[in-house]
Amino acid sequence: MQRSFIREILEHIGEGVISFAGGLPDDAFFPLRELKETAIVALEDPGTLQYGSSQGDLALRKAIAGAYTRRGVPTRSEEILITSGSQQALDIICRALSLQSVSVETPSYLGALRLFEMLNISADKIELDDEGIAKEGFEQSFTYTKTAYLIPDFQNPSSLRYSRSRRKQIAQIIQEQKGILIEDAPYSELYFHRFLPPISGMIPNQSYHLGSFSKSLAPGLRIGWIRASRERIDTLLAVREAMDLHSNTLAQKMIALWLERPDAHWKHLELLRHNYRAKMLRMAEALERYLPAFRFSRPGGGMFLYGTLPGVDTRALVRACIPHGVLFVPGAEFGGDPDTIRFNYTHPSPEEIDEGIRRIAEVLGKR
Amino acid sequence: MQRSFIREILEHIGEGVISFAGGLPDDAFFPLRELKETAIVALEDPGTLQYGSSQGDLALRKAIAGAYTRRGVPTRSEEILITSGSQQALDIICRALSLQSVSVETPSYLGALRLFEMLNISADKIELDDEGIAKEGFEQSFTYTKTAYLIPDFQNPSSLRYSRSRRKQIAQIIQEQKGILIEDAPYSELYFHRFLPPISGMIPNQSYHLGSFSKSLAPGLRIGWIRASRERIDTLLAVREAMDLHSNTLAQKMIALWLERPDAHWKHLELLRHNYRAKMLRMAEALERYLPAFRFSRPGGGMFLYGTLPGVDTRALVRACIPHGVLFVPGAEFGGDPDTIRFNYTHPSPEEIDEGIRRIAEVLGKR
Repeated sequence: MQRSFIREILEHIGEGVISFAGGLPDDAFFPLRELKETAIVALEDPGTLQYGSSQGDLALRKAIAGAYTRRGVPTRSEEILITSGSQQALDIICRALSLQSVSVETPSYLGALRLFEMLNISADKIELDDEGIAKEGFEQSFTYTKTAYLIPDFQNPSSLRYSRSRRKQIAQIIQEQKGILIEDAPYSELYFHRFLPPISGMIPNQSYHLGSFSKSLAPGLRIGWIRASRERIDTLLAVREAMDLHSNTLAQKMIALWLERPDAHWKHLELLRHNYRAKMLRMAEALERYLPAFRFSRPGGGMFLYGTLPGVDTRALVRACIPHGVLFVPGAEFGGDPDTIRFNYTHPSPEEIDEGIRRIAEVLGKR
Repeated sequence: MQRSFIREILEHIGEGVISFAGGLPDDAFFPLRELKETAIVALEDPGTLQYGSSQGDLALRKAIAGAYTRRGVPTRSEEILITSGSQQALDIICRALSLQSVSVETPSYLGALRLFEMLNISADKIELDDEGIAKEGFEQSFTYTKTAYLIPDFQNPSSLRYSRSRRKQIAQIIQEQKGILIEDAPYSELYFHRFLPPISGMIPNQSYHLGSFSKSLAPGLRIGWIRASRERIDTLLAVREAMDLHSNTLAQKMIALWLERPDAHWKHLELLRHNYRAKMLRMAEALERYLPAFRFSRPGGGMFLYGTLPGVDTRALVRACIPHGVLFVPGAEFGGDPDTIRFNYTHPSPEEIDEGIRRIAEVLGKR
């Protein structure tokens, strides 16, 4: 198994290099002071450093369950399993279900595709249209796989968000075919205009909803979760215990304490939404100015701008860009066409966005 | 797959219950104040909360590599992979090697046995003698498996430590047969008298040495590591990335900062050795006083007292003990005989040790 292109790039980022490659949140918005305060409180209690519950810190599970309930999906703490990020959540589910095949969007999240490959799970790839995964293709595929892995909100890498009607159609197909949905939702709260309810909420007993604090708070803490029925969570628990016992207890307590602060997380999300939207617009303008050949539509949330440079081999382009200190991920890495690109706009500064796009245009112009 | 008996017990421990069940360190010795200081320093840097390296924090890997080198096993930071505890380390290795079968001690660590079961790895069980895993049985088994999972220092659950000569014999067999050793070493630094060099050090290119801060510092941080050749580590990295990207970065930085303090970790280990030895002696005396039928030998380190209550079904005994507020793990859970028991002496207080053993004797007397 080869290592991922993205992770290799991330590990080689140096001074002066502008990266549009990773799915990194903006460091400047980490609530460092507040999280330090939570760490200090959590470390008053020696229990924070002892072995913990495999299912996860109860206060944290209660807070997450409460957020679902407020979003219209009634949820109890028993229906939440804390994981070390949603990458691990997917690994736990795939192993617990002994999955053989799964219906997925194409292009899709590389980490999921690589995990399926490692587990010898056959990924049946279905194209996206303007409203989400193509309905007919999905229905045909799902008849055989009975399991779907989907990212309906600001999909990685395309940033596409499923329409309300497509969500209903997909839920109906899964319900009728008595199958299972794995809904990966790391970007769902990073909308620029409005929230759309998850597909899982329509089929709460036939779904796993994967959430994460990596995009909404801090990826280094490696805390995510799975929402599923009590019975499903119990099945996952035995597998999870054999994998790594439980997630870091300090990080769980820190986040639980952070969520206890009135409005703190909500205000933080509003800050991210506002700033990420401004950065998205900045990048869209830079692209229109320096790279007018790049075809894209402005996303309604998430962390990526995805589009096409017609006729350009973007793998060759990124190789040519590296010596000029600018990085991005060719869409082909995610299963997209050879002339597609995924740009991350959340991590670079506004000035880096302008300069990075300018450099890419310069490299392209010289070819 | 059933959930583990031990984990279920741990989750049901309540007020007034004396537990000799888990492999829990003593909360009283967690260096809370010092770790709080490291957290405060680590959280000055927003990088602590960002995505990190899959291989692990470089300063932490350097410190661990340095400790191996000082112990006579020359090691570079590239030869260390940071994991979320050694349970995960074993999972990574098993998946990367696509193991089919493995030679193991019996009894052995339940978490490893359960992982092998989950991965459909056939565990070939070999009895222990006074010096370690029985040499002839091991040699026969290893001819077929070519892979061994061993805990040579204060083995869980038996607390047996391999003799110097058995270590050499095992290393020689593995070398001659061109096989692989997975050496699990969570208790190696918790010796009461002297350190013995690991088997891995004799066959550094044919081994994975698994270390952990769970027993020597704080299990809640979920930080362990693998020492192996550069080539082997590279193979593990691709698998690890697909599993959960990387370990909690805050915990890694905290431990790296803790290890930078001159002598802090060494003094901490000395404190643990001294106190755990005193607790072991306290338990040995309580057993001799209240449960003279219990046959055991005093361990030279680690966290457990293991022995036999001849003719007593210890699974039935622990069930009878639960209403009386005292818990232990029957040796049969680890593959031991039905009349064996593993007692943990590190977590209970000295008074709880006396009272717990007294209660068990009382329950036994009434049957």
